[in-house]
Amino acid sequence: MTYEGNLRRLLPRRSVRMHDPRSVGVVDRYHAQFDETLHLRSGGKLEGFTLAYETYGALNADKSNAILICHALSGDSHVAGYYTDDPEEKPGWWDEAVGPGKMFDTDKYFIICSNVIGGCRGSTGPSSIAPDGKPYGLRFPVITIADMVKAQTYLIDRLEIDTLFAIAGGSMGGMQALQWSVDYPERVRNVLFIASTPRSSTQNIAFNEIGRQAIYADPHWNHGDYYGRKEKPDAGLAVARMIGHITYMSEQSLEQKFGRELQGHRELKYTFETEFKVEGYLHYQGFKFTERFDANSYLYITKALDYYDVSDGYGTIYDALRRTQANFLVVSFSSDWLYTDKQARELVDPLRRLKRDVEYHRVEATFGHDSFLVEVDTMTELVGGYLAKQWRRIR
Amino acid sequence: MTYEGNLRRLLPRRSVRMHDPRSVGVVDRYHAQFDETLHLRSGGKLEGFTLAYETYGALNADKSNAILICHALSGDSHVAGYYTDDPEEKPGWWDEAVGPGKMFDTDKYFIICSNVIGGCRGSTGPSSIAPDGKPYGLRFPVITIADMVKAQTYLIDRLEIDTLFAIAGGSMGGMQALQWSVDYPERVRNVLFIASTPRSSTQNIAFNEIGRQAIYADPHWNHGDYYGRKEKPDAGLAVARMIGHITYMSEQSLEQKFGRELQGHRELKYTFETEFKVEGYLHYQGFKFTERFDANSYLYITKALDYYDVSDGYGTIYDALRRTQANFLVVSFSSDWLYTDKQARELVDPLRRLKRDVEYHRVEATFGHDSFLVEVDTMTELVGGYLAKQWRRIR
Repeated sequence: MTYEGNLRRLLPRRSVRMHDPRSVGVVDRYHAQFDETLHLRSGGKLEGFTLAYETYGALNADKSNAILICHALSGDSHVAGYYTDDPEEKPGWWDEAVGPGKMFDTDKYFIICSNVIGGCRGSTGPSSIAPDGKPYGLRFPVITIADMVKAQTYLIDRLEIDTLFAIAGGSMGGMQALQWSVDYPERVRNVLFIASTPRSSTQNIAFNEIGRQAIYADPHWNHGDYYGRKEKPDAGLAVARMIGHITYMSEQSLEQKFGRELQGHRELKYTFETEFKVEGYLHYQGFKFTERFDANSYLYITKALDYYDVSDGYGTIYDALRRTQANFLVVSFSSDWLYTDKQARELVDPLRRLKRDVEYHRVEATFGHDSFLVEVDTMTELVGGYLAKQWRRIR
Repeated sequence: MTYEGNLRRLLPRRSVRMHDPRSVGVVDRYHAQFDETLHLRSGGKLEGFTLAYETYGALNADKSNAILICHALSGDSHVAGYYTDDPEEKPGWWDEAVGPGKMFDTDKYFIICSNVIGGCRGSTGPSSIAPDGKPYGLRFPVITIADMVKAQTYLIDRLEIDTLFAIAGGSMGGMQALQWSVDYPERVRNVLFIASTPRSSTQNIAFNEIGRQAIYADPHWNHGDYYGRKEKPDAGLAVARMIGHITYMSEQSLEQKFGRELQGHRELKYTFETEFKVEGYLHYQGFKFTERFDANSYLYITKALDYYDVSDGYGTIYDALRRTQANFLVVSFSSDWLYTDKQARELVDPLRRLKRDVEYHRVEATFGHDSFLVEVDTMTELVGGYLAKQWRRIR
């Protein structure tokens, strides 16, 4: 079950130097408490909630340089930098993107990222303690991308920022960025919508549901009531993560990285032990995930993904997008079969019909959905260049 | 969890009339017992084994009209016809293909199909009783496609057929047909290799392994020792089947059949009950499968798929194919992302370099991997036409 390969080969080599001048260095996670009632799309509500968040760089005097980065399904508020001086600690999930001189240049911009509601990394979610003193579990209300965004508006208000220079996100983060521009059009100048979709497809829903079924099938899940128990639904969550993970990689990148290589042995073993390296890789990804993620949060966040359809509440996608005032950078990747370029065009085409300022790039890349994290040079050029261009327009 | 939609919409309407002149009608399943020891690729062996099989049509006097059809992962020997007069009974899994005047024309050809070893539909597999009087469970040896084929040679010998006019199969059936032509080149005149691959890809292995992990994660699996117990690993097997099922359909066909339609209700419920129709469909497919399939067989057969690489034991794919004497019909489908046309070309290209008689068709079709079962008109033209042409060459 142990993954013996070199995972880092999958990703460009990251700097792990703590005092790298291009690193944001050691950062803190903050927690913003809100006593307000958060009314949700479902008709449910949260009587008060917490958002965990981090910031990098400095807000300028006229508060015009704030960029909100929105994270994906398994992400959190820790985009960049380190929490400690431990040289073994891995940096935030998009450290390549955020720092001095990087695509989100902390010398110029003030970067904010908060953990979504429903999450398990500091924001209020199903593993949080409900007002009755016990964890919510399945009593937590079902949430949507619009609800995540609504919660973020409280944080942006708390930071006393009226208008965000940009909201950026890959995957589920892109959905949030788009939803901001529809629900709060006057508060966002630029949307960076990366490897995402304005509407979950049938296949997207199908993959999410199979992951949830894997969790439901784990008896330790116990209808969501497992907090404080000895056993958690790790086996089910690991299978769910493996299903997700395979959708993040392209067939080609799997082939290039693992092929039919054996798991450290020379001859086929013909047993049910790990035979091929790709199997060991999946086990590693699956079980590593259980150390940092809550199974119920996985259920809630994948449901939010399923529900995502930007037209929801507005009629058609065209009607929804008619509300937007932002400029758009849309990026898709040729080998991304989770959120395809066809799905990106479902956003680009109506935006163009609406004469919105939209720049669309379909990037040739082999890494599948993960390309947005892996293709650092291309992304730096596209995202960094786009932000610089838009920045010049308002200065 | 109940699927309320109309499943049949997914498939062209089948004739369910028992006395349809184009149906093979009521058929029997036979069991051939072999006392011989079957030596396996793994070094393991089976001391005697049984093959369940069916035949349709009549063997001609010079035994030149026999066609072996090989089934896929979840198939069995029941290709066509009915077991009873019950008008509710569904016909065999490829009834559209086998019968008087159909692509495998039982007025001309003698059709044979046997359940693979490792299976659970009458042939010896992990649910069979071992020589010690108890079910094999995980004591059953790991098997390969080559072993399935070797077992089939005993049946073909028993039927006193030297040379098969054709061996045909879709998906895993195509692997068996190809393996026959490499391991027993003088015994097969024509190979019909449909929606298949000469080598499981990394992604193929990854999907299979996730399915197995779902079964392992089910505590009722109990390391394969569940026969005779009250609870079987149905939950895990259902998840495995759902994972498999999604790879059989294209994104487009999922979108066309289900879109974002709700499961019988009009407004989003925002609960963890079945929200979208596609979810209900997957549940139905998953749980229906547990009524007819054994979880251990699923493990063994997916392992056989993983191991499949026609070059195995011969060096390169070119060296393996150099052994072949058959003519080849190779069919792939444009929307099949499980076994892609790229994979089909991994067979076609070296066959052409070897100057073998190979006819390759990449069929434009939207149904994904399932196209080989669904695109009946196209398949009838291609397969029926090919067989007729080859038949004329030897008469």
